[in-house]
Amino acid sequence: MPTGSDASDASHTSDASVTSDVETEGMRRALTLAGTPGVPLGPNPRVGCVLVDRAGAVIAEGYHRGAGTPHAEVDALAAAGDRARGATAVVTLEPCDHTGRTGPCTQALTRAGVQRVVYAMADPNPVASGGRTTLQAAGIEVSGGLLEQQARELNAAWLFGLTHGRPFVTWKLAASLDGRSAAADGTSRWISGAASRRDAHRLRGRVDTILVGTETAVVDDPALTVRDDTGRPLEHQPLRAVMGERELPAGLQLLQGAKPALHLRTRDPGRALAELFDAGRRHVLLEGGPTLAAAFLRAGLVDEIVAYLAPVLLGAGRSAVADLGIGAIGNALRPEVLDATVLAADPGEQPDVRLIMRPAQPPTQPPTPRPEDPWRPSLR
Amino acid sequence: MPTGSDASDASHTSDASVTSDVETEGMRRALTLAGTPGVPLGPNPRVGCVLVDRAGAVIAEGYHRGAGTPHAEVDALAAAGDRARGATAVVTLEPCDHTGRTGPCTQALTRAGVQRVVYAMADPNPVASGGRTTLQAAGIEVSGGLLEQQARELNAAWLFGLTHGRPFVTWKLAASLDGRSAAADGTSRWISGAASRRDAHRLRGRVDTILVGTETAVVDDPALTVRDDTGRPLEHQPLRAVMGERELPAGLQLLQGAKPALHLRTRDPGRALAELFDAGRRHVLLEGGPTLAAAFLRAGLVDEIVAYLAPVLLGAGRSAVADLGIGAIGNALRPEVLDATVLAADPGEQPDVRLIMRPAQPPTQPPTPRPEDPWRPSLR
Repeated sequence: MPTGSDASDASHTSDASVTSDVETEGMRRALTLAGTPGVPLGPNPRVGCVLVDRAGAVIAEGYHRGAGTPHAEVDALAAAGDRARGATAVVTLEPCDHTGRTGPCTQALTRAGVQRVVYAMADPNPVASGGRTTLQAAGIEVSGGLLEQQARELNAAWLFGLTHGRPFVTWKLAASLDGRSAAADGTSRWISGAASRRDAHRLRGRVDTILVGTETAVVDDPALTVRDDTGRPLEHQPLRAVMGERELPAGLQLLQGAKPALHLRTRDPGRALAELFDAGRRHVLLEGGPTLAAAFLRAGLVDEIVAYLAPVLLGAGRSAVADLGIGAIGNALRPEVLDATVLAADPGEQPDVRLIMRPAQPPTQPPTPRPEDPWRPSLR
Repeated sequence: MPTGSDASDASHTSDASVTSDVETEGMRRALTLAGTPGVPLGPNPRVGCVLVDRAGAVIAEGYHRGAGTPHAEVDALAAAGDRARGATAVVTLEPCDHTGRTGPCTQALTRAGVQRVVYAMADPNPVASGGRTTLQAAGIEVSGGLLEQQARELNAAWLFGLTHGRPFVTWKLAASLDGRSAAADGTSRWISGAASRRDAHRLRGRVDTILVGTETAVVDDPALTVRDDTGRPLEHQPLRAVMGERELPAGLQLLQGAKPALHLRTRDPGRALAELFDAGRRHVLLEGGPTLAAAFLRAGLVDEIVAYLAPVLLGAGRSAVADLGIGAIGNALRPEVLDATVLAADPGEQPDVRLIMRPAQPPTQPPTPRPEDPWRPSLR
């Protein structure tokens, strides 16, 4: 019987082996390590690993820092050295059994003399799976399913990509009460308040790609840099991408810096997503404008909508979304509301409302983490 | 020293006389009576009255039921008969000293042998004021200011009219996330959910006039009937009014029934309000469409905005508000948010968001009651 420290965790334990409180605590820590802010997303999952000795003490910790860097198990084993012998490895994903840019983790764990492996979720990637069997064949005790749900939420976009063969798409919009995203003269700074803008930067910080249309790139000339709550740019910035057939003038902010934006020369959302997926991208944030949003919505390629609604009236100006081909009210898009929050306003400002939604009848099951802070995987 | 049952009530007591707990309780009851649902608004204030004997027992209650009916004091005195002799009259408004369609209440109270009068707010209407002095001259003990703030909130629209010489104006809008109040083909039933619609009927129930433009009257052909939460029409319906120079076809729902809508043949919001004020109207609800709303906003004649925002996308269709003459984002209207609430959705529906706002720099001080149920004066 599982002995996880709370019943809801225990219910995720799909394995007959006994997991201890120490292992549950270790898994919580491994999940936190896996979700370390600033770890670049990409084609690889987030993974964390904690090595625990027989007395229940933590020997070493490790986590994966993105494609081409050591896997979490190898990272932890390197820190542990000889102390890994006889230890239990607590890891958020079933250890891989596959030689990619790095060797198989099953081999590294066996070589290090690890006695037991506890993982949260099985590896759904057919290329890398089989770790459990290989470890057991090497005489290592294996238990899976501990805090599995949390591990799945942590890698929601990666899992989505495995199932659907394209990146998960979040559309962010900021609009006035009358649905405008810019005034008549094109000015849009700022419709929403500072609290919304900080929140939107946190949203940017959890994706690996920010996508805008050529119109937005040229007219608004945004930098699309992600900043933390203090205004400092994050160390690892998402890829910036511009979609559309129009040429981009060289002076644009998006084309400056060490990593200028990628220009996807297509108007077809499906083709743009395919190109991004092939480039290892797993979570795309649509940041504007109305034509881009409408193209993705019409193609059924929006998996999540985050709307910042500001208590502002404009009466004219750019709409938040272009024509969707909807004629009658009965055909309106009615997304499911996952969360509706009144954001606390900064002094001197008015509160915005944030809605997090997903299409009402998703072609898919977008595995969005739920708030409290919806931009951090929750480790309930 | 006042002995009101809580400190915040006591702080409103601006009079040196002692008020007892019995009187405070009586005033709460009088306020409740004054706010009896279904009492038609109009040019007169809402007033309630409770008669209390020397032992603290309630002898009789009364309230004013609208212009041409007995004042609250007279209503209570009639119910009390001889038992009023020696009693204390607890009344939400300083008794009037003026002969209008009914005689002065000061006279009625004196004649009935009332010994003491406690009121909440002084009568700000110069025509009717002076009651306090008259009563004191007749040897009656008088104390004012008990739960004054609550009494002011109860008569917010009436007080507004006294100060500003026009009705208080609430603009109600229901819009999609992209600011549409109807789809491309004009259909708009329903953008918002059933919970919002019930809430909007409660809002209608606290005004004395519902105003729409000729365009809305003709295109949407609304009935503008106010219903309670069970769907039953209220006994006292607000006046329905249509504004604009266009002729109205005879078949419209608004022109049916015992009291067909009033047609105000002007496009000037100021003139329309003056006409309504002269007709005894004190609280006008703008219900559409975008042209009407824009005209009032541009004229600075909106005192309160109630927005129901539905998690719906349309991409095209009628905007919630027409051109406001705003060119740049810096000139956007940024009303102050008094309340932002996520309305609990009915089963199978999605939650709407309701914002209650007032113009950021009001030319006036619109005395809007605050929620809990913002459509009922709060009697905290």
